[in-house]
Amino acid sequence: MHFGSDNVMGASRPVLEAILAANDGAEAAYGSDSWSARAEAMLGEVFERPVKMFLVATGTGANALALAAMTPPWGAIFCHEESHVIDDECGAPEMFTDGAKLIGIPGLAGKIDPAGLSAALARFPRGVVKAVQPAGLSISQVTEAGTLYSLDEIKALTGVARDAGIRVHLDGARFANALAGLGCTAAEMTWKAGVDVVSFGATKNGCIACEAVLFFDEALADTFQFRRKRGGHTVSKGRLLGAQLVAYLENGHWMDNARHANAMAATLAQGLAAVPGVTLPWPTQANEVFAFLPKAVDEAIRGAGFRYAPWGSLSLPKDLEQGDRAFARFVTSWATKPSDINALLAKATSTS
Amino acid sequence: MHFGSDNVMGASRPVLEAILAANDGAEAAYGSDSWSARAEAMLGEVFERPVKMFLVATGTGANALALAAMTPPWGAIFCHEESHVIDDECGAPEMFTDGAKLIGIPGLAGKIDPAGLSAALARFPRGVVKAVQPAGLSISQVTEAGTLYSLDEIKALTGVARDAGIRVHLDGARFANALAGLGCTAAEMTWKAGVDVVSFGATKNGCIACEAVLFFDEALADTFQFRRKRGGHTVSKGRLLGAQLVAYLENGHWMDNARHANAMAATLAQGLAAVPGVTLPWPTQANEVFAFLPKAVDEAIRGAGFRYAPWGSLSLPKDLEQGDRAFARFVTSWATKPSDINALLAKATSTS
Amino acid sequence: MHFGSDNVMGASRPVLEAILAANDGAEAAYGSDSWSARAEAMLGEVFERPVKMFLVATGTGANALALAAMTPPWGAIFCHEESHVIDDECGAPEMFTDGAKLIGIPGLAGKIDPAGLSAALARFPRGVVKAVQPAGLSISQVTEAGTLYSLDEIKALTGVARDAGIRVHLDGARFANALAGLGCTAAEMTWKAGVDVVSFGATKNGCIACEAVLFFDEALADTFQFRRKRGGHTVSKGRLLGAQLVAYLENGHWMDNARHANAMAATLAQGLAAVPGVTLPWPTQANEVFAFLPKAVDEAIRGAGFRYAPWGSLSLPKDLEQGDRAFARFVTSWATKPSDINALLAKATSTS
Amino acid sequence: MHFGSDNVMGASRPVLEAILAANDGAEAAYGSDSWSARAEAMLGEVFERPVKMFLVATGTGANALALAAMTPPWGAIFCHEESHVIDDECGAPEMFTDGAKLIGIPGLAGKIDPAGLSAALARFPRGVVKAVQPAGLSISQVTEAGTLYSLDEIKALTGVARDAGIRVHLDGARFANALAGLGCTAAEMTWKAGVDVVSFGATKNGCIACEAVLFFDEALADTFQFRRKRGGHTVSKGRLLGAQLVAYLENGHWMDNARHANAMAATLAQGLAAVPGVTLPWPTQANEVFAFLPKAVDEAIRGAGFRYAPWGSLSLPKDLEQGDRAFARFVTSWATKPSDINALLAKATSTS
Repeated sequence: MHFGSDNVMGASRPVLEAILAANDGAEAAYGSDSWSARAEAMLGEVFERPVKMFLVATGTGANALALAAMTPPWGAIFCHEESHVIDDECGAPEMFTDGAKLIGIPGLAGKIDPAGLSAALARFPRGVVKAVQPAGLSISQVTEAGTLYSLDEIKALTGVARDAGIRVHLDGARFANALAGLGCTAAEMTWKAGVDVVSFGATKNGCIACEAVLFFDEALADTFQFRRKRGGHTVSKGRLLGAQLVAYLENGHWMDNARHANAMAATLAQGLAAVPGVTLPWPTQANEVFAFLPKAVDEAIRGAGFRYAPWGSLSLPKDLEQGDRAFARFVTSWATKPSDINALLAKATSTS
Repeated sequence: MHFGSDNVMGASRPVLEAILAANDGAEAAYGSDSWSARAEAMLGEVFERPVKMFLVATGTGANALALAAMTPPWGAIFCHEESHVIDDECGAPEMFTDGAKLIGIPGLAGKIDPAGLSAALARFPRGVVKAVQPAGLSISQVTEAGTLYSLDEIKALTGVARDAGIRVHLDGARFANALAGLGCTAAEMTWKAGVDVVSFGATKNGCIACEAVLFFDEALADTFQFRRKRGGHTVSKGRLLGAQLVAYLENGHWMDNARHANAMAATLAQGLAAVPGVTLPWPTQANEVFAFLPKAVDEAIRGAGFRYAPWGSLSLPKDLEQGDRAFARFVTSWATKPSDINALLAKATSTS
Repeated sequence: MHFGSDNVMGASRPVLEAILAANDGAEAAYGSDSWSARAEAMLGEVFERPVKMFLVATGTGANALALAAMTPPWGAIFCHEESHVIDDECGAPEMFTDGAKLIGIPGLAGKIDPAGLSAALARFPRGVVKAVQPAGLSISQVTEAGTLYSLDEIKALTGVARDAGIRVHLDGARFANALAGLGCTAAEMTWKAGVDVVSFGATKNGCIACEAVLFFDEALADTFQFRRKRGGHTVSKGRLLGAQLVAYLENGHWMDNARHANAMAATLAQGLAAVPGVTLPWPTQANEVFAFLPKAVDEAIRGAGFRYAPWGSLSLPKDLEQGDRAFARFVTSWATKPSDINALLAKATSTS
Repeated sequence: MHFGSDNVMGASRPVLEAILAANDGAEAAYGSDSWSARAEAMLGEVFERPVKMFLVATGTGANALALAAMTPPWGAIFCHEESHVIDDECGAPEMFTDGAKLIGIPGLAGKIDPAGLSAALARFPRGVVKAVQPAGLSISQVTEAGTLYSLDEIKALTGVARDAGIRVHLDGARFANALAGLGCTAAEMTWKAGVDVVSFGATKNGCIACEAVLFFDEALADTFQFRRKRGGHTVSKGRLLGAQLVAYLENGHWMDNARHANAMAATLAQGLAAVPGVTLPWPTQANEVFAFLPKAVDEAIRGAGFRYAPWGSLSLPKDLEQGDRAFARFVTSWATKPSDINALLAKATSTS
């Protein structure tokens, strides 16, 4: 009954079992273990091409290191003004890039559009020394509003980036949920759409601490092992990470988990939308539901022990009347039970 | 039969079981979970006073963050010239301190002495603006030579540090092995001896990825949560770390592991020392054995499948004749079996 | 006939003569010279209280160092979204603060207001670890739009800052022009209005390379000498800077220069405003004039050899119709001749 | 009578006159002025090939920026253990390189040798991730001991560097004095001997604040304008720097100054060496004299008003008996008068 985030639950059973299975015997340290090698090979199959994979234990580590591989200290990384990298990482990207600037771009429903990106790029002309120099675009898929870029929207943005000569990072902390939401392949959502680097999140969707940074361009990955090491992100008993990822990818476990989480969110969204006085500002396209709740409803379901996060956003629909309502975020996960959703909806409905 | 390092083995059984046990149900993220709280309380008992604890997944992360809490960017951290922080972390301390200098001090058997520290301090006079300013002392216990500072030696060094107005960090990647070797209490080896901050390593001694940074002075810990976050070292499902540490500390498991590892090393050292042509440059005081081996011995035991690291050092005894021998490091762990030691020694003896 | 900036002209005669006068004989290096000491004392009189002064050769150096003294690497500095520190220094503040974030706040005519500042502060709650922590406010006086904050406006902003527990920096690259425009004392515009640190610019207004960072709170200045040195901003023959500042301050030379520049700008503004088709979006309160010019006027005066910068801004009046006009910035200085203004205006008038 | 350093005197007459001459009229800012362009062209002639020149106001700025152009943050810069970059810049190289390591190499008379460099390089194997990666060699010419590398010595070191795939920086804070001492051409001492980047100092030898960073390989200079700007080292009224350098180079003024300073040092050295009880540990090859002085001599000449720096060094000849003597450094300059030398020697001689 905890919808606070998808990181409040532990690991799924297959992932736990892989940690156990990987525990016996000696393995080379610092990512040279057999489990990590197997994970990289499996990712190659998932993405339909070789990828250069680096495992770390945190999403902030993955994002900050990935961005650092794309920009010099005097570079600019463009992103949504409410993205995780700009708002929720206590300056990690600035630290790992040695001082590059994140340029926030406004946009509805957590998404930026090509016009917004072009306008932002225009403020940082190439070769004008007083201006930081455009270096990268970072898009979040799933976005901070729980929405998804369509493949065409991604391509439109990466097209602008390519024309500007900058690299593209995809923050996939909820990569699997995005894939399940779009119903496309991992390749289609990334390199085939112009993405260079991916933060491939697994922690939220069934692992306990495992994120992969994936490069499709090996040259861009050149310096990464040094960056990861001096960032303190090279886990010595690397099998811990490798084993999680193997189990996560094996037998489509990751997509099963994501489809379940998304289905739970869809049910929750549908149910909440039917509650009088409730408004959902954004479509529910993955595993997050955002809703304006009448105060009475909010208090009733909280009183019943349901936990979720109060929210705020700069990218709400212009015509939304917030009134005297609570704004809340509900996150479902691989571990969410249909009965939890039903109980929450029953409480909300009976209150309104 | 892998003596390469104590990080080539997985986790001990109690630690694994705690990971499993901690997996069920919802827990607050980012270190606010109940397991981490319990671990901090247990450390308070171990150290006989309240400690401020921060968990991270890597030793380099722990060290770099701890040092960053002690020094401004224009500060100097004094350490042995072959210490892990100066030699083996790819510049992580420089990154996390935003550019402070590590000042390497020579010393036999991996240890620095008060005269060496004083001489180094004298090169960086307070208030002389062109010089970086003394900020911290970092000592490794167990040292890079597998040796231990006695309590008196620690106190002598921290006395010099205190007189110079600088803080003291203890890199305890092998903290438990040191404690087992000295046969003293954790309090005696740290705050009672003048240590301010400890990297309390657990990974090498039975955990799979868990290190604690411990502060005895809460003021020094003030900024740590921000430093850890922007370093990407705040693990979201913090129970993973907390659970490991609880199991590690419970029922003296950590000290049992360490005593076992040390005993294995003692047996190995004694056996190797008896092999004709073998010289041990340093006493074996914890779980590492360093030895000069006749080439034939080296080849024979390697050929038999034993793995260990070739070594090098700037702090060898002056009168040691290295001759045409291989220099090697053997590390034992909680998982080392007596039969492995015996097999290795049998091979070595039969060859010489 | 060059209105491109106030840094396209050299130094005024008294400043040059002081450089010559200071050249003879030996002087202690690195800012310990007698000229710098005299300059600091004179500033104490100007500001009606002791100030801690540090001289550097560039405005970017002064600003970046001043901001670094106010914020930890995980801090946030609030400023206008088009301020010099955020837009025109190629990331120097990020470099010198080791990665702090500049938070741009929108506002008309180059100015932020208390509501805007409060709203921005609210996005970075104290103690919420994922958010960078509010550390400083930086206001530009003269602003990037050539306008001035009134004393009341400054006090309103510093009041919000004080309530939020953050420090206040004033970027006074055109400090004297601001003072001349407001007609108040240096004390009134700074510490009496709640300002903690000032970048006191002298280069643009008659010096050739001299900026002072001034602290009213000595504690805040504690680390500055180290920051300046490691930033490479401690000029060895410090008399060069000290002598300029002495001559600049002596006999009210600085205010004479500024009043002249401001008067030239006022004449230019009045004249341009009278040209048909010309619109001035902002009041001319110091030594910068911004104007929308009919294309024909723009081409004619450029053709006549007048030089000035094309401009752009995010903070234009909402009801301004830009039409097919050129947007331009004209900067006057201590060296601008009335005849230059007259010639420009004659050309503009005859064209329209 | 001030031999404390060559930065205690002001600028020479031709340099001052150039500052005056350059002052009139408008000039483009930020280094795009005509004087800087002319200086770059003149340097091209001096070095017998095109050079990419960047002017800054301080030697620390020049060195730190030059090193930053050569190394990634996880790189190692090798230098003498008492070089200015490692000892006297308060961590500026670490700041500008975003955390690279300076590796100090011992060596007599302020010089490192190929064996010492090779041994240091061997400690940082390429591709070993835990080790910082060799990136650059920085040699000082004149050294901190006032000595000079011969051309053959430079070539031997740059040969080792080239074989190791690292770049070579020459810290020429006293470049002209070195050239005068060696009696070779600027080309021979730099690019013809394998040097890639030069800190070409002019401040100490007749300018008031002017240092040039020179690149022989344009690719290496690619990012420099951004580095300089974000370092706050792009002087806005760039004519100040350009004019100094033009006058400095014109008519061989720089070499005249340097030859004079060196001759003064030679006279001083010869005279001191003849004083009973005085020992000069190193040959006087440029404009610095180092001497062990009997206490009585030291007190007598200090008492007579002569000023010079007490000294210390790790690189003294092994067989030197320091006894109860003062160790002192005397620096001569373009402004040193023969009568000052004579007076000092007379005092010293009469005392002993």
